[in-house]
Amino acid sequence: MHAYKLLISYDGTNYCGWQVQPNGVTIQQLLEEKCAIILREKTRIFGSGRTDAGVHAFGQTAHFHTALPVDPFRFLNSLNSLLPPDIRVKTMEPVSTAFHARYSARSKIYHYHLNLNTYNDPFRRLYAWHIRETLDLALLKQAATHFLGTHDFTAFANEAHAGSAAHDAVRTLTRLDVLEENGTVRLEFEGDGFLYKMVRNIVGTLYDVARGKTSLNAIPGILASKDRRLAGQAAPPHGLFLVEVKY
Amino acid sequence: MHAYKLLISYDGTNYCGWQVQPNGVTIQQLLEEKCAIILREKTRIFGSGRTDAGVHAFGQTAHFHTALPVDPFRFLNSLNSLLPPDIRVKTMEPVSTAFHARYSARSKIYHYHLNLNTYNDPFRRLYAWHIRETLDLALLKQAATHFLGTHDFTAFANEAHAGSAAHDAVRTLTRLDVLEENGTVRLEFEGDGFLYKMVRNIVGTLYDVARGKTSLNAIPGILASKDRRLAGQAAPPHGLFLVEVKY
Repeated sequence: MHAYKLLISYDGTNYCGWQVQPNGVTIQQLLEEKCAIILREKTRIFGSGRTDAGVHAFGQTAHFHTALPVDPFRFLNSLNSLLPPDIRVKTMEPVSTAFHARYSARSKIYHYHLNLNTYNDPFRRLYAWHIRETLDLALLKQAATHFLGTHDFTAFANEAHAGSAAHDAVRTLTRLDVLEENGTVRLEFEGDGFLYKMVRNIVGTLYDVARGKTSLNAIPGILASKDRRLAGQAAPPHGLFLVEVKY
Repeated sequence: MHAYKLLISYDGTNYCGWQVQPNGVTIQQLLEEKCAIILREKTRIFGSGRTDAGVHAFGQTAHFHTALPVDPFRFLNSLNSLLPPDIRVKTMEPVSTAFHARYSARSKIYHYHLNLNTYNDPFRRLYAWHIRETLDLALLKQAATHFLGTHDFTAFANEAHAGSAAHDAVRTLTRLDVLEENGTVRLEFEGDGFLYKMVRNIVGTLYDVARGKTSLNAIPGILASKDRRLAGQAAPPHGLFLVEVKY
């Protein structure tokens, strides 16, 4: 048995997310189909985690197993020539069969992009959340610090499927930086793991603080409540990028 | 009579270029239709120049005349709410009726983007020409200097329509900078005017030099020949951006 790790970039605009599902084309599905064509065997691709419909990736990772070894350079060329242009496998390397894209991951980095310009830039319309309201960014930065560290993030997690609430919702957020440049804001998240929709729910809550709808001081209470209904709405998917998975 | 100047940004991917034409949707057409809805009168929009199908703009300019004055702030909001999200009017200001977006222009800036990475970045696939061959960028930079200054650019101009060759094809290129960053190259053109497809034809010729198909020393002769057949193929439209029109 041979194992390979893939580093994948995709524009999520035209996909129903990462994970194979009955209705709609997904990135995992296309990778499995194209790998099966090259390998002439049914192939399962294991990603570091799902991304939702419309979410993008600069650095999604995945692994797969094959019966026979392959030449990574030739395989990568074949795979990219079969994939549509909005999905590209950037690198491929042999790994130990003990490697698992999801379970071996030590941390993940997500970026969320806000566009605060008056007009919605045509070139960022699919890659940033355009916000027309005036935001208090000083307040947003203060609010962000409340999420740092180890918390039970139940109040900021959606259930992936009915009854699938995470048994253990304790996660550690090691970084949540807020970077401004020319009317755009990038929220950089790094943590040991993220619950379903956790980044988008935190961004939605930061947005509520920054526009004066939620009090800065309410955040510790919302975290402690473990009540999803108390946190803000999920920010839209198209501002979110999975940037890196660290092993 | 009142006159207004518009600054327009658009993602050209889904359009048949700037100029109104019988088949296919154009940017000028949409602007004229939406302005006519707001003004309740037939409106002609005069651009600084056409851009071809697939070409983008950060800073196209245009003007129009109205019988009655309008409030630019409100007009801009209405116009952007009627336009599709891949076209945005960034600013609007009253100008003298003597102003003409095309004839008053002193110079224009175009950028052309090359992507030289092994894989075609999903996020740049619609905004840069992906080149797989190895390019000699030092040679490309030397070749670029041959185009600087005042020349008859007939060899680098296509005819817009049959028999429409420019009477005067002498133009002055004041800047052609070649900037590299992370496997991408940005060619920055500034000049007093550009003939039809001139930027793309120059880029195509620079590409031929950089990949060893055309000799560096051949360029002065191609310029002097005024023979379109001697210059390179036009580079694809999606790498080209109209960045600024100076008045």
